[in-house]
Amino acid sequence: MMWHMELSDFGAKLSSHSGILQLMDDISKPLAEGVKPRPLGGGNPARVPQVEAAYRRQMERLLADGEAFEDLLAHYDSPQGRVSFLEMAARFFRSRYGWPLTADNIALTNGSQSAMFYLFNMFSGTTGGKRRTILFPLMPEYIGYADQGIEPDTFVSVPSKCTYYGDGTFKYTLDVDAVREYLDSHEEVGAIAVSRPTNPSGNVLTDTEIRTLAALAREHSIPLIVDNAYGLPFPDIVFTDDAQPLWNEDIVLSMSLSKIGLPSIRTGIVIAREDIIRAVGNINAIAALATGSFGPALAHDMLASGELVDLAHDVVRPFYQRKAERCAAIIRSAFEGTRYMLHRIEGSIFCWIYLPDLRIPTLEFYSVLMKDGVITVPGEYFFFGSDRQRHGLPYPHEHYDKCLRLNYSGDETLVEEGIRLIADRYREWSL
Amino acid sequence: MMWHMELSDFGAKLSSHSGILQLMDDISKPLAEGVKPRPLGGGNPARVPQVEAAYRRQMERLLADGEAFEDLLAHYDSPQGRVSFLEMAARFFRSRYGWPLTADNIALTNGSQSAMFYLFNMFSGTTGGKRRTILFPLMPEYIGYADQGIEPDTFVSVPSKCTYYGDGTFKYTLDVDAVREYLDSHEEVGAIAVSRPTNPSGNVLTDTEIRTLAALAREHSIPLIVDNAYGLPFPDIVFTDDAQPLWNEDIVLSMSLSKIGLPSIRTGIVIAREDIIRAVGNINAIAALATGSFGPALAHDMLASGELVDLAHDVVRPFYQRKAERCAAIIRSAFEGTRYMLHRIEGSIFCWIYLPDLRIPTLEFYSVLMKDGVITVPGEYFFFGSDRQRHGLPYPHEHYDKCLRLNYSGDETLVEEGIRLIADRYREWSL
Repeated sequence: MMWHMELSDFGAKLSSHSGILQLMDDISKPLAEGVKPRPLGGGNPARVPQVEAAYRRQMERLLADGEAFEDLLAHYDSPQGRVSFLEMAARFFRSRYGWPLTADNIALTNGSQSAMFYLFNMFSGTTGGKRRTILFPLMPEYIGYADQGIEPDTFVSVPSKCTYYGDGTFKYTLDVDAVREYLDSHEEVGAIAVSRPTNPSGNVLTDTEIRTLAALAREHSIPLIVDNAYGLPFPDIVFTDDAQPLWNEDIVLSMSLSKIGLPSIRTGIVIAREDIIRAVGNINAIAALATGSFGPALAHDMLASGELVDLAHDVVRPFYQRKAERCAAIIRSAFEGTRYMLHRIEGSIFCWIYLPDLRIPTLEFYSVLMKDGVITVPGEYFFFGSDRQRHGLPYPHEHYDKCLRLNYSGDETLVEEGIRLIADRYREWSL
Repeated sequence: MMWHMELSDFGAKLSSHSGILQLMDDISKPLAEGVKPRPLGGGNPARVPQVEAAYRRQMERLLADGEAFEDLLAHYDSPQGRVSFLEMAARFFRSRYGWPLTADNIALTNGSQSAMFYLFNMFSGTTGGKRRTILFPLMPEYIGYADQGIEPDTFVSVPSKCTYYGDGTFKYTLDVDAVREYLDSHEEVGAIAVSRPTNPSGNVLTDTEIRTLAALAREHSIPLIVDNAYGLPFPDIVFTDDAQPLWNEDIVLSMSLSKIGLPSIRTGIVIAREDIIRAVGNINAIAALATGSFGPALAHDMLASGELVDLAHDVVRPFYQRKAERCAAIIRSAFEGTRYMLHRIEGSIFCWIYLPDLRIPTLEFYSVLMKDGVITVPGEYFFFGSDRQRHGLPYPHEHYDKCLRLNYSGDETLVEEGIRLIADRYREWSL
């Protein structure tokens, strides 16, 4: 007979049914027999041939270069990451963007999800008797953060404001007054955090919004953590002109190679003040010993020469922009005659659609769609950090259970079929 | 002016000065000018040409196989790990060792250090109001565990017993009575954990000792976690005949590809009950999103065909055994005339030397040796989990501040020079 497994609070919290688990499960879960899958869930990026060709060249060069391949395999990198990459990256960002960086301002992790896990828990949770929190100032935010707090109830948020346009689109904007007021009345906030572009909405916080948040963070002696996984200067899945790569000492910038071709080689890049980087490297040593070497090795020459940023700007960005525009056109056509609103696709590989007439929550609508093989992510998972939720009430945002996140980067026929099926079912399940 | 960074208790605990940090720092830290480095610290394995050649073949095959390389790059694996690898590994262990496994019994992580971090914190820390602990029944144990508890004081330990032989060697053995007594009087223990072979001592717990521990764990409805990073059936850095690959439902077996050629590609393999594996996969999803694909992809065919286990047994094991015997011979010659004892090198890439006449703690002796470029790891870091330490007292083991861990796997000339310098300095610093 098996003994009963008792998990710690940490184990129970991190392994309870969470949004990110459903999402990752859906990627591989078999559908009912005979159902054709239209995978618009998950966050897997598209394959971009020119990017793949560049990594193949790097790998072939590595194999052809004497024992370079064997040498790469054989050594642990330092816990802060591959030193040659850190030095090169510091030079690159210094010369290209004028950021005053040295290798001591950069750390690598096994993926940016791990970086966020470290950062969130460095700056929140029990802190000398107090309990500090992470403030997400623009809900909805990335589902993958929702359960990353080691302790319960350490994530708090401010609902976004919303601007509706006449063309059936809308855009989330920062409620600056509410954010300021929250910070002024909650001294326990340990960091502010945003994704930029925003996962799930495809919103891109403007330079002004980022500068405002960074200044607010500074006023309160806390950092602004910016998850730049889809952002500038790479992978540059950003379609607005109102966004520049931004960093200063008040900002912790988390970057990734996943959306520029290497999701399977976990490589996160954190740029921050030296004391923050030192802590990230130390936590990485204890929790992971070292960061894998293949990502930085494959990307080294490409970043150093400017090729990576050029590929991002000249190939990856237009690749996704075309797909985004196509997706928006299909949505306009498929949802014709229904009440719907599409968030402006300013960046990321997602579109975010608001279905105000839906008469069931999107958590249920999601299951309806699954029967047609249409895999989406229901919006509820992207709203977290309100006191109301702790009492079983919905998140205080009118979009809470009326939105779907769709990954538009996949096979175009399947994306179109999926969207048309969603529109059909929306008509059936409208008020 | 920079604001003051305030870390949470988690951040402060995991980024404070810890043994593993010193160890990983030393790997890359520059020595004083003109000092020749003799690196006997760290845990970097040796380069083994036949193993490297096998991975090169795998990588070349991958590149030659149509779009297999691009396909590998382009997709996140599931949070539990690459599904095809899990299925193959279950088949392999089932048919070769009769372990009743399916893919649901196996999870991959970004290195086994991450696996241990998850496991320790799943089974220790605050648990519904109580505070559970991890029991290390054979101190000294791996330095890399010492700081992995998210909460303070959740690691407890029982000092090993010690058998001294007439030939200047000794061996740690399990104090079964003390372990049983500890478990019977401390119901808060959430798991028992050992490394096998033991890092740092090179001890290999016998099959009987492992079976005893597994039975004790079962009696107390907790798992026995076995870190098999140097163990059987791969990398098989085990030189005794008294050890078999062991698994049953009371055991959580953590394996690694690091010591069979892939330290830079972080790949941990956990074999356990389905409910434990599900929890590991879930925590991995939240803390790391996914596990890298390159390790399992390179090792897939090698494990499936038996090549990996054959390489381990026929190449890796004799490779290290020869080095271990050479190292022992050098120690006998260099320390001739001093009082010293060498732990029997039964496995792992380390030797562990006891210097009873040392008149300074090894933490200080370490610095003396650094001046000669001899990098070692002082023994104190490998003793943790006693109440006495919390009061600033030494760990209750006569070896506490009298041992050094030496990695014998490096360049043989440097290893020899390092050992002879240690012996010389020991003579100077003896009572």
